[in-house]
Parts: sequence; structure tokens; C-alpha cells
Amino acid sequence: MLKAAVVGATGIVGQQFLVALHNHPWIKVAALAASERSAGRAYKDALTDEKTGAFRWFCDEPAPAQMLSIPVQNAIEMDPTKVDVIFSAIESDQAKILEPKFAATTPVISTASAFRYEKDVPILIPGVNSAHAALLKEQQKARGWKGFITPDPNCTTIGMAVTLKPIFDAFGIRSVIMTSMQAMSGAGRSPGVLGLDILDNVIPYIVGEEEKVQKETQKILGGFSRGSIHPAKFLVSCTCTRVNVREGHTEAVFVSTEKSCEPADIARVMQDYNDPKVAGLPSAPKRMIVVNSDPFRPQPRLDRDAENGMATTVGRIRKDTALENGIKYMLVSHNTKMGAAKGAVLVAELLIKDGYIG
Amino acid sequence: MLKAAVVGATGIVGQQFLVALHNHPWIKVAALAASERSAGRAYKDALTDEKTGAFRWFCDEPAPAQMLSIPVQNAIEMDPTKVDVIFSAIESDQAKILEPKFAATTPVISTASAFRYEKDVPILIPGVNSAHAALLKEQQKARGWKGFITPDPNCTTIGMAVTLKPIFDAFGIRSVIMTSMQAMSGAGRSPGVLGLDILDNVIPYIVGEEEKVQKETQKILGGFSRGSIHPAKFLVSCTCTRVNVREGHTEAVFVSTEKSCEPADIARVMQDYNDPKVAGLPSAPKRMIVVNSDPFRPQPRLDRDAENGMATTVGRIRKDTALENGIKYMLVSHNTKMGAAKGAVLVAELLIKDGYIG
Amino acid sequence: MLKAAVVGATGIVGQQFLVALHNHPWIKVAALAASERSAGRAYKDALTDEKTGAFRWFCDEPAPAQMLSIPVQNAIEMDPTKVDVIFSAIESDQAKILEPKFAATTPVISTASAFRYEKDVPILIPGVNSAHAALLKEQQKARGWKGFITPDPNCTTIGMAVTLKPIFDAFGIRSVIMTSMQAMSGAGRSPGVLGLDILDNVIPYIVGEEEKVQKETQKILGGFSRGSIHPAKFLVSCTCTRVNVREGHTEAVFVSTEKSCEPADIARVMQDYNDPKVAGLPSAPKRMIVVNSDPFRPQPRLDRDAENGMATTVGRIRKDTALENGIKYMLVSHNTKMGAAKGAVLVAELLIKDGYIG
Amino acid sequence: MLKAAVVGATGIVGQQFLVALHNHPWIKVAALAASERSAGRAYKDALTDEKTGAFRWFCDEPAPAQMLSIPVQNAIEMDPTKVDVIFSAIESDQAKILEPKFAATTPVISTASAFRYEKDVPILIPGVNSAHAALLKEQQKARGWKGFITPDPNCTTIGMAVTLKPIFDAFGIRSVIMTSMQAMSGAGRSPGVLGLDILDNVIPYIVGEEEKVQKETQKILGGFSRGSIHPAKFLVSCTCTRVNVREGHTEAVFVSTEKSCEPADIARVMQDYNDPKVAGLPSAPKRMIVVNSDPFRPQPRLDRDAENGMATTVGRIRKDTALENGIKYMLVSHNTKMGAAKGAVLVAELLIKDGYIG
Repeated sequence: MLKAAVVGATGIVGQQFLVALHNHPWIKVAALAASERSAGRAYKDALTDEKTGAFRWFCDEPAPAQMLSIPVQNAIEMDPTKVDVIFSAIESDQAKILEPKFAATTPVISTASAFRYEKDVPILIPGVNSAHAALLKEQQKARGWKGFITPDPNCTTIGMAVTLKPIFDAFGIRSVIMTSMQAMSGAGRSPGVLGLDILDNVIPYIVGEEEKVQKETQKILGGFSRGSIHPAKFLVSCTCTRVNVREGHTEAVFVSTEKSCEPADIARVMQDYNDPKVAGLPSAPKRMIVVNSDPFRPQPRLDRDAENGMATTVGRIRKDTALENGIKYMLVSHNTKMGAAKGAVLVAELLIKDGYIG
Repeated sequence: MLKAAVVGATGIVGQQFLVALHNHPWIKVAALAASERSAGRAYKDALTDEKTGAFRWFCDEPAPAQMLSIPVQNAIEMDPTKVDVIFSAIESDQAKILEPKFAATTPVISTASAFRYEKDVPILIPGVNSAHAALLKEQQKARGWKGFITPDPNCTTIGMAVTLKPIFDAFGIRSVIMTSMQAMSGAGRSPGVLGLDILDNVIPYIVGEEEKVQKETQKILGGFSRGSIHPAKFLVSCTCTRVNVREGHTEAVFVSTEKSCEPADIARVMQDYNDPKVAGLPSAPKRMIVVNSDPFRPQPRLDRDAENGMATTVGRIRKDTALENGIKYMLVSHNTKMGAAKGAVLVAELLIKDGYIG
Repeated sequence: MLKAAVVGATGIVGQQFLVALHNHPWIKVAALAASERSAGRAYKDALTDEKTGAFRWFCDEPAPAQMLSIPVQNAIEMDPTKVDVIFSAIESDQAKILEPKFAATTPVISTASAFRYEKDVPILIPGVNSAHAALLKEQQKARGWKGFITPDPNCTTIGMAVTLKPIFDAFGIRSVIMTSMQAMSGAGRSPGVLGLDILDNVIPYIVGEEEKVQKETQKILGGFSRGSIHPAKFLVSCTCTRVNVREGHTEAVFVSTEKSCEPADIARVMQDYNDPKVAGLPSAPKRMIVVNSDPFRPQPRLDRDAENGMATTVGRIRKDTALENGIKYMLVSHNTKMGAAKGAVLVAELLIKDGYIG
Repeated sequence: MLKAAVVGATGIVGQQFLVALHNHPWIKVAALAASERSAGRAYKDALTDEKTGAFRWFCDEPAPAQMLSIPVQNAIEMDPTKVDVIFSAIESDQAKILEPKFAATTPVISTASAFRYEKDVPILIPGVNSAHAALLKEQQKARGWKGFITPDPNCTTIGMAVTLKPIFDAFGIRSVIMTSMQAMSGAGRSPGVLGLDILDNVIPYIVGEEEKVQKETQKILGGFSRGSIHPAKFLVSCTCTRVNVREGHTEAVFVSTEKSCEPADIARVMQDYNDPKVAGLPSAPKRMIVVNSDPFRPQPRLDRDAENGMATTVGRIRKDTALENGIKYMLVSHNTKMGAAKGAVLVAELLIKDGYIG
């Protein structure tokens, strides 16, 4: 069993890490860290509001009982050498400071965007660009680290990248236009999305999101050669919005392919898509992509939990009427499972299997 | 004062007609008609549930007091010659039968889609394609009618067509890709959208909607010459979804223009857009298009009521990164004001002014 | 294995029966029946909308694969003697006609209210009034049936009755005042609650609900002697409302007890409450009542699924400041698990164990 | 015209004050104050997010144009002698410090609870306990102030107190039991209610709310004699919950009256209720209480805006079946109009008319 630390353990993403690592066959949570305010208290006490007695646990799954008594450390004082891997659930500002410190000695898998766009940092999605893991060696060389930093993609990128991959492989892609209807959980809890603002409403702007999705998609689907990633050449444009949904991002995707193809071809390559490198991993879905032929699917409430939140569900695959070789479809992807902590655990599993961790 | 009948008066669209015609300076509601079940009762009684006493009025505005005592007629027995114009709020199936019967003698303005796609039927949006009204004369000639049928566009088409019009005029359009997030009121009440289905959810399919929007947009922005409409040549593709919003359709629009232009150019032609033919009409908005520079706008709850629900609000105008000469923006349009009954009353006003009615 | 028929199998309650009976250790679904419209088709086909291809399955759990091919019978032609027990999920109007026909030969467990208030019909909640089952023998005698009808309580009654039981036993009850905030699923789907009506809203009236809860609570907690139920003497008053929640009824309960008691006493008798007759049944919760000390609990979204939806969760037990010996608390109970199909299956299990069925 | 300052002007309650005072016939907004962070900037700039350009205005009504250029002062440095009345929209902690400082020279009308429960402080509802205003003179004497502090009641108290008043006058009251379903706006915006927490949910606890409502109701309906308020003797018990509604508190009220009475009597005394002292005030509703006989009313979305949000709407008046001389009803009251800023402006109007201000 490898030992893991979860940094940012009291926040919602940190809690999701604990759920994702609960009863994990390869990894054991050995340390929890958070801000100074929580430090020195048992995890359970750190989550309990002193004034009201409320227990501030935000996952649908119960808090793993054995983790409640673990003492919370001050993240800036945590010794990274005591663990084999660090899951980082902290904000980007802090990540810029803390993650390099940890990475000097220990692998860091992060949900923060702080390092995503650096040349020597891959954005791994197991099953999509597993080969990019080799860039971690370049990173270690360049920075003189024993560990490394490997960040998750943005939660809106991941479902689109997963579903574009088999299209890209089979037919090539010229351009992608996407409009997202994103769940509130993507905004976290501080301040998060107010009920007053989202009730009976759509919020048409998520700061910085569109640029992230556009850039990350090209990087993730890029080739890897001579020690670096060569971003994919196709064009990407998106509009990202927030809707009154708790979990599960919905995306309307329009794709112009290089080679002409029919909706049935797209359905087939998506359904058949699978990466043998990922097949055996404990958190891997059986099917990366679930294609549903009911025209009223996918729906976030009904499909976000497909394969325990690790599959992307696709539906409404049909001809587009405006793009050359145009295809359009809808997808739903679980933004806080595959799109965050559980996806990061899957990355850890891939890196353990391939010898980068442990 | 012209005399109007509202057919389908007990349903939600019929009620919206009564609100739109309340205290109208040119038009007086002289007759109400509905199905046999309501016939013979005063309007107030027809809306009152006998078992529970509930008053089935669905508009935010109160029911106009003077209309409550009007007796409801059986629509299939109503004499159309007693009124100068008929507002039809019935389902398409019934519209196919009843509207031609009425149109033999009397102008019919309809929210049903039954006749929208026929060659001699315009889809009028005052301020956008007022000139298409001339097709009504061809219709009368071809069908031997004294009246005519002129249907409203689909509620999802209208906001997009209004905002594309100044772009089309100034820069030309090659293609349009649009994803809608539509309000529940667009689905009506029988059966409408169940709370169970839309809570915490997005419904990714609205039967027939996408085809309507694609076809209608080309027809509305088409030219009119030699007695017929020549649909615009640009390509249109959309994905239409339903979100948990009561009123106000939100649309993410991506446009490829013929001539290159900047977001500021688009904002300018939209803001300046105005049709002098429409300016004086009682229901016309002062501005057809409201451009809001706050990046978090438009939002359906905040912007649907702009100019009493008759303006389309646009925001987030920016460069598109996937289309040639690409521009993208968001819009909010009130689907049951400009997009239905009140929009139909505006059509009536245009046709009265231009001598087609009265 | 006993053979069961589910009547009303295509509706939402019928679907919930199939989920509740899926992989049941004692009962096997041998027949499905519905209206004439569905009759003659495989269950899967009966649920598939012919026009759109939509699959009309409404439970969160997937449709049990082995039931999809079962042919649906016409309920009015179904032979009740082919099964050992019938679960009836039909509307009250039909129940009045069909259930006696079935009961002539076969036990019927029903979610309809049609027979709830008849003298020789118990309203069973296993663990609360198991002894009332003996009334079924009187019913058989009186009506000359080999089978019987035993209806579930109203979904709003059940959580309150379960939590009042230990209070009643330990301290006696003078009066109960309750306000419910009920989930939309309680209204079913035809027509159900429209999203337009419940968004940003509370609906303060549910036809007939308050009278049902008041009457049923007294009957359920009544004594059984000399072949009949003697309704409990305490007074009950409620106000029933609908809120924008999918599943899980929330109730604010105010109780005046006979003997003085403290909140801690109430918590203790609730936590300790258990009926050994129910303990071994396959669908029985481990704890009938879960007491949560977090002051922000119970919440319907967080607590409705406690013990697979079969427990009632209680919180905020505190002194009441207006009633004599007043105690107040909140409860959440799953209206479509314990409160409907799964609760009916638990009744079946009790009756099997006690020899009334099979 | 009297000059007013609004303190806490950038927050949501402060904004509501500006809306309530917009075009007021007697009062002109002469000064705006907020925290140090906003001080020195024009009001418009203080509301504009520097990073994103978002305009942080939260009312449905537009921001009054003429107030946008008013410079915002630092509240702790504001000179109270420059204005005739101060509307305070600050948090209780700050109110404890700032309001006495202001009150030394100037009348303060506050939405904070800081001083509500002090002996020499009335909780005024014009039309209900206008006579309590005389206590302000005792307060001035006792504290040596030229001004005074008079706080609004809690937004949940006000609708109940208004509707209990005519019952109390006509029939006497023994006890009141109430369950509230409160709107999100009551929780403000920092942090307010998260969409993640309230979607598909009810939150059964609002810290401190129940105690406030219980105490304030007795104080408001208390008698005033010999220079002090004598709280009403009847008992009050409530359960306060939060539901997914933007504006408008819904309350289920159960009352035990001294004298027996029928629902029709209650409807009559409520409908007839009116205080001539209030009739002419600019913000006063024509009817304090609107009784709606539709059994599905009141609903917060439909009834919160009755009489511009200044009336309380009552429905479902019926016999209670558990209390002696029991009556039960539902009410909806606008928590941020009558229940906050606009209610405070009504208090100002009463105090101006009676010579306490100006």
C-alpha cells in the first residue's frame, strides 16, 4: 500500500478525495493537511462548526469513519517525504507556492490549474493521453525535482476531450464549437453559486473557463514526441454557462471532421473506444464513453453517475447542418468525479502502474 | 377601435393574448373562443376549477377584469365575420382545420406552427422583415381568401433572427451555430415540463425545435421579390435544450460573417438597429436590441423583461476562435412576450398600420 | 419463492414496485398488468414512446433487465389465481373496482387510498401496528374473500406515525400539530407538479391530504381488540404543502404529551425504538428511526435515503413553547420508498412471515 | 423634503432602501455610507467589480440613476447631523457600535436586530402597534439622545404579527404555533444560501430565528402603558425553515383563540382590518391584509408582490382540529419589502407624520 497525503482536506474537493480513496486497494490516506485554522484538530473536529454544531461534510457519500480521527496538519508545514503521493485540492494561488515545494521530493497530483499551461507539465487523462506521462521525466530533469506536478484538466474540458479522442483518431478534426451548461458544484463553496442568483436563471459567464477549455483540449489531444507535447491543430471555441444543476456538466458539441463520416460511425468509434492501459485500474470505468440512443439523453441528473461518475455519456449524435463534415452531439460528464478528485486518483493509478509513483 | 377574437382563450397563450390586448389603443377584445368544454360559460367560470375552486389563470399579470364576464364561444362554431382580426392560440392540429376556415373572411394571426412553412405564408417579425407582409396578398389571391393566415415564428427563432438581422445587413452571414437553453413556459402546460424532470437537470431535446429554428431563420432573413420569399443562403445549425427557468430563452450564438468585423462593430450595429416602420407601434420596444456590456449578462431572470419583454438583450459579444470571421454572443429573449402573444399583437399593429387589417 | 403480480406496472409507482422486488429473496415478479393501452406488449415496449423513442422509466435505479421482456397484461383481464400476492399501484377510482375482484382469491397490497378508511381494513406499518394484521381475518370473514386488501398509509402519514409511536408508548399523546413540506414525487406524473408552478414557489394545498393524515394517524396508532381497531384518542391537525423537492417529505411536528418529558427522553425512545417482529424482514431498516443531532438535519436531499429509504430521520428535538408538555421536532421520510412501493413490500414480508400470504 | 442617509448602502438591504426611497415624496437620499473599502468612490463604482466589470446590483428594480453618482462615505466617519433620518442596513455587530453613535443626534431606523429586545426600544409595525412609538421618548430620556433607534421586526415576524392583530383584537389569543418556509433572500448574500445546498432540499434550521419570532410577536402585540410595553401573554412556538424560493416568506399558522370563532369571522376581521393612522402614508398598502379564497393561495411567487410587497396575503382559513378554539391559515409576506427596507421607510413615514422625525 502506498501512502498518500490529501492537502486541502477540509474543502469540498479534499472531501471528494477522501471518498475516492476510501477502501482503495493500492493507496492509503496517511496524512491530511489544510490551512492553519484547521491544523492540530482531528479531521472530524475540523469539519464541525463550533458555534452551531453543524458537520460541514459536503459529499453525498458518508465521511469515511476511519479518517475522522486523523489529525489535520498545517499544509505549509507538512513533510512531503513521509508519503508516496500527494493529492492537492488547494486553490491556484496557494498551489503556486506549495506544490513546487512538495514536488521537490514527492509526486503531486493536483486539481488546481496553477501549472496546467507550463511546457513541461502534462494534463493527463488516462485512456486519452496516457503517453504524455513521459513528460514528467522532462519536468523532473528541468526542475531538479524527485517528484513532479501533474494537474487534472478543467472539469469542463475532460468530457469533451474524452469524446473527441475517438473522433480525432478515426476521422481527424478541423474545428470544435461547444456550449456548456455547467453544474454549480464546479464553482465550489467559497463563495460558490448563490441560490438567489441561479434560481430561475442561467449565468452566461464563468471567468476564465472558456480559455482554459480551448487551450487544454488542444494540449490533451496533442502529440508527444522529442520530449514535448505538440498541441493539436484543430480550432476550438466555446461558451461556458452555469445552470441550476448540482452535479454533472452538460455540453452541446459541434465538430467539423477532416474525413466525412456519419452519426452511426461516430457512435461506433465512441462505443468501441477503450485504452488497454487503463482497463485494469481500480477507478477506471468499464466504458470510457456510454452512448445512449434515447433522444432525451444524456441528462445530468440521470447520467452523471454512469460508471460511478467515471464515464462520459453521449447522446443525440446527428449531422450538423452548418459545418463542413459536421457532426453534433450532447454529452454529460461528472465534474466532481471524473472531472476532479476521482479522476486524479485514476491518474495516480496509471502512474503507479507505469512506475512513476511508488 | 378594431374588434378582435381570441381563439384558444382559456389556455396559457390565450391568456397572454388577453394581457397583451388589455387597454390596447387600437384593438378591443370582442369575442373569446375555446373548446366545447368551456363554451357557454363566462370566461371567469371557464377558468375556475369546479372541484377545487382554483382559478386557473397563469400569467404574472392579473386577469383583465372586464374580460372575465365575456361568454366563451365554441371555437368551431365561432362566426369570424363578427371581428376584424383573430388571434389564434390553438394547437397545430386544430389550427390546420380552424385557421383556414377563419381566414376565408378574416385575418388570422397565429402562434401555431401549422402554416409557417408554406410558400405563400410569411413569418413576420416587425422590424426585421416587415416587407414580407406583401406575401399576404399572394396568399389571398392563391387561396381565394378575404382574410389570411400569418403565423408568429417559433419562440426560439425570434431572438436569434432579430439579432442576426443587423449583422446580416452590415457584414453578411455564412453560417450560424446556436445552442439554446429554453424556458419551461415554451412547453406550455399540457403536459408541459414536470418539476420532477427538470429539477437538478437539463433536458437535451425538444421535439422538432431545431428543424423549426433552422428553417425559419433562413425564411425570415430571406429576400422578398417577384411575389415570393427567397430564403437566406447562410447555413444554420442548432441544439435546443430545456433548463430550469420559467420564462426567457437564453441562446449561445456563434456566427461566421462574410466580411471581417470586430465585436465592437457588432455591438454598434445591434445597438443602432431600428426599423422606422415599427417605431410608432403601441407594442413596439424602443430598442429592438439591448446590448449589455456587463460580462455576466444577459441572464434570463434579469433581462427577459427588457422593454416589457419586447427587446432582445445581447451580451458577451466577442471573437470566435473556430469559425472564419467568427463572432460569438449570448442573447436572452422573452419567449412568451415577444416570442408569442405580444409579438403577434405587434404583427397585428404593423398590418393595421399598413392597411392589411381593418 | 412466492409469485407476485404488479398491477399498474407502467406507472411510476409500479416501476418502484419492480425496483423494490428486484432480486427479492422471497418474492418473484411473475406477472405485470396495466391498462388496455399497454396490454400485449413486452414491458420494455410498453415503456417506450413510439413517436420519440424515449424510454419512460422514472426511477433512479435502472429498470431490472429480466423484467423488460415480461408481457404486460390488461389489468381487468388478469387472472389473480396465478399469483400468491398482488401489488396494486393503480389510481383509487380503478382500485375500487379491481382490487375487490382480485381480493376474492388473492391478497392485495395497495398504495391506493380507496379502502383505507373502511372498518375491516387495516393500514399496516410493520413495526408500528403489526398486530392490526389480525383484522384481515375479519375482513375475509365479512366479505367472503380468500384474499384481502391491505392498503399502505398515505406517504405523509407514515413518517409521522412511525415517530409518534415511541412517544405514544412512553409518554402518551394529547395532540399533534404538523406542517408538511412535501416532495413533488408524491403527486405522481399525471399530471403531477409542473415545473412552471413549483419553481420559486410553495404550493400551500394538496387536495384531501390533510384529512387523510389526520384520520390515518389515529387509526394506525389505535388499539386492536375484539376484532376491530379503536382509533387513538389524541387530536391531530395538519397543514400540507408542496415544495420544490424531488423525493422526501419533510415535516415539522409539534406534540403535546400526556406525561411531561424532555427532548433527551424523546431522542432516547426514538433511537431505541424497534419491533422484533420486523427485525429479520428483508426490506426492514436496521433502525426504524435515525436521530441526527446536527441542528441542520434532517434535510430531504441528505436524509431521504437513510437505510435505503426505509428509516425516518428525526432532528431538532426541542421543547415546544406553546403546548402543554410540548415537544417539537423535524422529520424526513422517503415518500416513494417507505412511503409507497417499498413500504408495501415490507408489509408483504410481514404478512408472509405471519402466514397471511403464501 | 427631509434628508436621509442610508448606511450599509452597497449591500442588498441598502440597495433595497434606495429603491424604496426612489422618488419618495417626503424623503430625499442625501448621503450614502458603507465600509471603508467602498468609501471615497461614487456609488456606481463601489458596486462595480474591478476585476470582472460585473455590476453588483441585486434588486429586481433598476438602480435609481440619480443615486449612482453619490459619493460613498465611510460609515464610521459619517456626520449624522447632516441628515434628518438614518436608515441603517448594517449587520448587528456593527449596528451595536454605530447606531448609538448616530442616535445621539439623529433618528435611526434599522433592519438590524441589535437593539430589538431592549426595554426602551419599540419594534414598530405601522398599522399594528403605532402607539408604541411613544416609547421613543422614554428612550431619548433614558439615554440622553436627541435621536433614537427604532428597529424593524424580523422579516418572519412581521407577516404573522400583522395577521394576528385583528384576531387578537376581536377574539383574543391563547397560543400560536407556526411553521415558516422562508425565502433565500432572508439570508442575504454573505454568505447567503448556496444553490448547492438548497436545490432539491429544505433546510430545517435558521440560527436564532425561532427565538426572535416568538419574542417579537409578544412584544409587538403587547400593550403600552405607563411608559413601557407589556408583552402580550399568549404563547408562541415556531419552527423556521428555508425553502428554494427567492422572495416571500410562507407561514402555516395555527391559533387558539380566547373566544370561539368561525373561519368566516377570521376572514372578515382580517379583510376589514385597517389603521386610519397609516392610511395616508406614501408607502402604506391600501389593504394591510389581502384574503384570497382560492384554496391554492397564497403562494410566494404569486402573492409576495401584493400591494407592492406591503400587504400580507392570507388563505386557507379553516378550523383547526387539535387546538381549543383552533383556527389555521397560511400567509405570504414579502420579506424584503414590508419585511425590511420598505417596511422601515413606512415606519419613517409614520414617525414623520407624528412628529418624531423632522
